[in-house]
Amino acid sequence: MTQLDLDALNRAPSSEFVSALGGIFEHAPWVAAAVAGRRPYGSVADLFAAMRQAVLDSDEEHRLGLLRGHPELAGAAAKSGNMTAESVAEQGSAGLDRLPSRRVALFEELNRAYRERFGFPFIICVRRHGSDSLLREFQRRIELKPEAERSTALAEVFRIAALRLDAAVQGPDRLPVAGRLSTHVLDTANGVPAEGVAVALVELSEAGERPVVSAVTNANGRTDSPLVGDRPVPRAAYELRFSLGEYFRARGTPIADPPFLDLVPIRFGVADPEGHYHVPLAASPWSYSTYRGS
Amino acid sequence: MTQLDLDALNRAPSSEFVSALGGIFEHAPWVAAAVAGRRPYGSVADLFAAMRQAVLDSDEEHRLGLLRGHPELAGAAAKSGNMTAESVAEQGSAGLDRLPSRRVALFEELNRAYRERFGFPFIICVRRHGSDSLLREFQRRIELKPEAERSTALAEVFRIAALRLDAAVQGPDRLPVAGRLSTHVLDTANGVPAEGVAVALVELSEAGERPVVSAVTNANGRTDSPLVGDRPVPRAAYELRFSLGEYFRARGTPIADPPFLDLVPIRFGVADPEGHYHVPLAASPWSYSTYRGS
Amino acid sequence: MTQLDLDALNRAPSSEFVSALGGIFEHAPWVAAAVAGRRPYGSVADLFAAMRQAVLDSDEEHRLGLLRGHPELAGAAAKSGNMTAESVAEQGSAGLDRLPSRRVALFEELNRAYRERFGFPFIICVRRHGSDSLLREFQRRIELKPEAERSTALAEVFRIAALRLDAAVQGPDRLPVAGRLSTHVLDTANGVPAEGVAVALVELSEAGERPVVSAVTNANGRTDSPLVGDRPVPRAAYELRFSLGEYFRARGTPIADPPFLDLVPIRFGVADPEGHYHVPLAASPWSYSTYRGS
Amino acid sequence: MTQLDLDALNRAPSSEFVSALGGIFEHAPWVAAAVAGRRPYGSVADLFAAMRQAVLDSDEEHRLGLLRGHPELAGAAAKSGNMTAESVAEQGSAGLDRLPSRRVALFEELNRAYRERFGFPFIICVRRHGSDSLLREFQRRIELKPEAERSTALAEVFRIAALRLDAAVQGPDRLPVAGRLSTHVLDTANGVPAEGVAVALVELSEAGERPVVSAVTNANGRTDSPLVGDRPVPRAAYELRFSLGEYFRARGTPIADPPFLDLVPIRFGVADPEGHYHVPLAASPWSYSTYRGS
Repeated sequence: MTQLDLDALNRAPSSEFVSALGGIFEHAPWVAAAVAGRRPYGSVADLFAAMRQAVLDSDEEHRLGLLRGHPELAGAAAKSGNMTAESVAEQGSAGLDRLPSRRVALFEELNRAYRERFGFPFIICVRRHGSDSLLREFQRRIELKPEAERSTALAEVFRIAALRLDAAVQGPDRLPVAGRLSTHVLDTANGVPAEGVAVALVELSEAGERPVVSAVTNANGRTDSPLVGDRPVPRAAYELRFSLGEYFRARGTPIADPPFLDLVPIRFGVADPEGHYHVPLAASPWSYSTYRGS
Repeated sequence: MTQLDLDALNRAPSSEFVSALGGIFEHAPWVAAAVAGRRPYGSVADLFAAMRQAVLDSDEEHRLGLLRGHPELAGAAAKSGNMTAESVAEQGSAGLDRLPSRRVALFEELNRAYRERFGFPFIICVRRHGSDSLLREFQRRIELKPEAERSTALAEVFRIAALRLDAAVQGPDRLPVAGRLSTHVLDTANGVPAEGVAVALVELSEAGERPVVSAVTNANGRTDSPLVGDRPVPRAAYELRFSLGEYFRARGTPIADPPFLDLVPIRFGVADPEGHYHVPLAASPWSYSTYRGS
Repeated sequence: MTQLDLDALNRAPSSEFVSALGGIFEHAPWVAAAVAGRRPYGSVADLFAAMRQAVLDSDEEHRLGLLRGHPELAGAAAKSGNMTAESVAEQGSAGLDRLPSRRVALFEELNRAYRERFGFPFIICVRRHGSDSLLREFQRRIELKPEAERSTALAEVFRIAALRLDAAVQGPDRLPVAGRLSTHVLDTANGVPAEGVAVALVELSEAGERPVVSAVTNANGRTDSPLVGDRPVPRAAYELRFSLGEYFRARGTPIADPPFLDLVPIRFGVADPEGHYHVPLAASPWSYSTYRGS
Repeated sequence: MTQLDLDALNRAPSSEFVSALGGIFEHAPWVAAAVAGRRPYGSVADLFAAMRQAVLDSDEEHRLGLLRGHPELAGAAAKSGNMTAESVAEQGSAGLDRLPSRRVALFEELNRAYRERFGFPFIICVRRHGSDSLLREFQRRIELKPEAERSTALAEVFRIAALRLDAAVQGPDRLPVAGRLSTHVLDTANGVPAEGVAVALVELSEAGERPVVSAVTNANGRTDSPLVGDRPVPRAAYELRFSLGEYFRARGTPIADPPFLDLVPIRFGVADPEGHYHVPLAASPWSYSTYRGS
């Protein structure tokens, strides 16, 4: 999606504004319509606050409609191709379109039970969760009292909308929706940044592991861009895998055969999707250390 | 096997000596017979040196017989139950009795090709190798010239015999056949040895992973006995897995949810089966370091 | 002092027993005399408990005499040579015989004020304190109420006696009076223990620094004996100094000129004189880590 | 000195150009005069290259005059106040105006011997050296053959000029004359950047220690500006001192009394004045690690 400029949106005819932002809240263009008249907005945060307030000020029926408008997780809409483009992208980001069939069955069962209990589908900002975390949230929330769960669901609707708005509109500010995951490799045998180290990030879940991103360190020992940036870091367990043996072999640093350290895994959990996680590796062929930086 | 005392062997009738040590060299009691008359031996090392010399002094036919007397790796003898107890234990130690069928087929093909090329079965001291290392040695040695490979095979016969003699006979000394793998967990958040940390050692191979041993750290942050001791550390890639999250949770040290560090894997390779590998973990809930100690 | 055997003391004539142990409590052979009749003692701990009880059971006058019998810290008795051999050794161990004159003057002033306030000299088990810690204890205790300070002083008398008894008598057990300070140097550039590293331990105080011990690491990267062992580790700030640059230069590991790491100082405080402090250094020419081990 | 703009210099009358850059080479405005006619220069590097070439193209007499125009190190000119402002600032930066008298005497003796041997004063780019390094260079170069030393001296003249030009003129580029020294403190007990840690950098030399800079870490665990930046990092031994105990005490993290780690010193050497030295500290109350980053 090309980003729209806040200035342009402020000056656009109302119908254009609504058409541009009608999808921020799923199947609920009325939210955009409700705030079009209060333009101009000085910041994306102001615009988001107005949309959020419009939802909170709406009547129960509208709010419930908002909840009902969302597709199920890995559900029938996904399989039949009847989801909005935004929902397709969101569910795909969490790998929900590539789940093992055992887990799909589990989600289906939960979807059914949840809808029966609460009268609307389970809504969660999937970009903030890994596969295990989604499941645990599902299992936790299905036990909540209806009123509590309704406000939890609404909070998730706002998180989804904030991410969509952040992606759609460019203004003088940014909504605080992005986290960051980065790394840095130091060669402590030679006292230099380690250049050319292959790094792979995988998400670990009970359903197996899922590659997230691969990169190679540059002359500063960093990857050219953060491993995760400009978006939440999904709540999950990860493993960073550094091809350290190859690096030292290529550099001519003497190592054992097989090397004492070859592929170095660092396994860590992300609890705060909007947090900054810097996970450096300082390594020689015979030792390494890591820590959570920021 | 109960250990025999070197003193007792020195004083025993010749026939008893030969019967006790007839299996040190596979299907070749003549080696023990050849050295019985030179007793007494002051050390296990002297006894081993004499047996080794007896083999080197024997004629080509005897030496070839020695090579031919060994069973194949994961071969027909193993499957039909026609192996000596020593060979059964040795091949079992390397997991050769639990290989995936694809790898069994590969070994069978190599066994056939090797025997065709050299006229005797592939012999290797399996207690010194993990599954991948065995395969690589097989693939490397099958390319050697017959003369070079014959002396390589004989060197392996001596390694096997040394390990058997070390296990069978107790004397004032020990043959240098054992390596060691140990660990130590330090809690750097609290400045104390980490007691009660579950540690698992697994061997990693292309055919999958194989549990080696599990233990829990004691009040000194160490395991009560080395993870591997009193025997070679097979040449292989390993992963040590420390249940660090559980430890800090049990101790009441504040951690994130999910914890930043939960199960901590340290992956390393062993190149020298007779070496001492000390792989400590010094960790807080947010950082750790490790190195090869000794 | 040659150590006496507990067995021999148990069987010795009473007069010999008293003469041997008359100095355990300063100028108070009556304590030994009081417990001679209850022999035999099964352990040094039993013997010590009996002596301690004899003091607690004695009348006020005896207990006060015990306090009055001790020499002042860095005081007149020390300067005139009128101290027992035990007190000379103890005060010397803390460097009290080599204090800068400014600090001597401070101790003299405190001694005078303390004696005036409490009617007996300031008593402290000097082997458990560095120079700064002694001073802080002095300044803290001089503010206590007389009753509280009298029992603090008596507790110190017992600590002094326990150390003397531990040094004097060998039995089946040892009193828990010793701490330990040790180190270990790992070469993480080469994956081996660092052999031949010169290590110096100095005590840091406001009055300057005082060398405690120097050593060179052996093939295991350790010193042949602990830096401090068989005695308390005085409560103080220390610096361990490792000649790392020299080590790598001698080993031929490439380093910068001047080296990035040359003399590596690790500064740490000891709070528990009977504790075990293991302070290892894991280092390459460009990195190092340390932690409190045990 | 206010920085001049390269554009403005390119357009200025020749006399103004010479007057502005006449001091880049000490007492040698003829260098600036020689290159004024070749303006405009597209970059500071081009301008410097032209000035350097003008010196190399000049006759022996001019070049020797250039060498003779420099003041001695810590010499008579310094004491009598007869140095250019640039030289005063340079010699002051290395602490040459605050040397202990023993070392001043040593420099005087070397100055005399050097001038006698070579016929011009000892010239060195003092901003690139600590006090010990200056002395070692002096002692090394005084042994060189006259021809070799003359070109060494000229190379130093160019280094001095490059630093002066970099400071004086602002253009689209910068001469590669600056190094950098920075730090970063991570709190590995709490998994956050350590904010509010006092850090002091001192230069260590045989003549004693000299404070370089002090700072306090910000919310990112870094200092607001590099400890050394925008200039060479003098070749010397340094100690970075981190007030770690105070930090943990203020934060409420439990520590021992006295703390195991209080003031943490990291001692390191700088070999490459134009290099980037990042010296981070990752620490808990009981452990720390550091390495050379960049």
